[in-house]
Amino acid sequence: MKQVAVILSGSGVFDGAELHEAVLTLLAIEQEGASYQCFAPDVEQLHVINHLTGEVAEGETRNVLVESARIARGNIKPIAECDVNAFDVLILPGGFGAAKNLCTFAVDGKNCAYNEDVLNVCEAFARAKKPAAYACIAPALAAKVYGNQTKMTIGNDKDTAEGLNALGACHVDCAVDEVVVDNDAKLVTTPAYMMANSISEAHASISKMVSTVLAMK
Amino acid sequence: MKQVAVILSGSGVFDGAELHEAVLTLLAIEQEGASYQCFAPDVEQLHVINHLTGEVAEGETRNVLVESARIARGNIKPIAECDVNAFDVLILPGGFGAAKNLCTFAVDGKNCAYNEDVLNVCEAFARAKKPAAYACIAPALAAKVYGNQTKMTIGNDKDTAEGLNALGACHVDCAVDEVVVDNDAKLVTTPAYMMANSISEAHASISKMVSTVLAMK
Repeated sequence: MKQVAVILSGSGVFDGAELHEAVLTLLAIEQEGASYQCFAPDVEQLHVINHLTGEVAEGETRNVLVESARIARGNIKPIAECDVNAFDVLILPGGFGAAKNLCTFAVDGKNCAYNEDVLNVCEAFARAKKPAAYACIAPALAAKVYGNQTKMTIGNDKDTAEGLNALGACHVDCAVDEVVVDNDAKLVTTPAYMMANSISEAHASISKMVSTVLAMK
Repeated sequence: MKQVAVILSGSGVFDGAELHEAVLTLLAIEQEGASYQCFAPDVEQLHVINHLTGEVAEGETRNVLVESARIARGNIKPIAECDVNAFDVLILPGGFGAAKNLCTFAVDGKNCAYNEDVLNVCEAFARAKKPAAYACIAPALAAKVYGNQTKMTIGNDKDTAEGLNALGACHVDCAVDEVVVDNDAKLVTTPAYMMANSISEAHASISKMVSTVLAMK
């Protein structure tokens, strides 16, 4: 049975991991006959967004690992404890958390900073030639990790695509129910809620991503 | 197309709506060709649980509607604004939030209090003979709403089942991938994470509940 490391970035689309993408990723992993362990960095979120109003909740702070534990029902470990040798595949769902808490792409674009522990794990999977999948805006990390004109997608948003290319990626436009595969890098990406207008569309995107990355040798 | 009202109770298994159950409910509704609107009460949570440690986060407060908005990606309304005439079906996913924030069954058992606005909506669906489904521990509300020896399940936990029976229900043991149907009340219940050991099992439970309640006339 393949073991999948899943990196979460909080719990909620506007300041953390996108909940639908994250939950549907975990479901798809099991449905493909694999199992998962969730990880997240033990750091403060960039900020807390009130998801009812869309406004920043001034003065409030939340921890990425603690909030991610909501998605993992408590079964989660700090990303610094992720032993890449114990896993076959890496998956990062999206949500603004990927671009606010795992790196600062949402704020700084191509000049963004990366969480060191997350970057170390992502790079270790790439070096070991183990397959990896990044959904939605999470390719902001893949661009840095793989560079080298690696093919990847965030859908078809021109500005975001240019940001990835400035980080060394080769962005490819992609429909919401499709994936972009770079076979040399063993990298699978999909737009998910960068394009999805419903949970069904996000499900199609995430399911195809997970089945594709788990089929890779 | 059938319109489903979904009542959420926060965002996270230990103090809110169970995230897997909630997300898989929304997915199943769309996959059955129906559409949904999420609702939640605009009240403070009973408490906030740190989902990494399982401990109460002392001094922290969160609002049920605001946290539920994380699951609904911001598209959610106060339960007090739910017009039962606009909907065909009612669904309540589980999680401790159903028994801590929508009522106090987790604390007070058969002597529990109920959120008035939530109870009003649930009772209006029952009076209108519109089908309803309650997952996991949410039947703590159904027991109060339907009473009258209505058949329902929370799985096979003896103490919890006795609590429901004390509220007027007729508890029926049920496997995780099955549902209990009371055709007179038009009520569907399923154990979900009261019994599920994995997200796949929760998915089987929730999918069957949603397809069953949406097939009801």
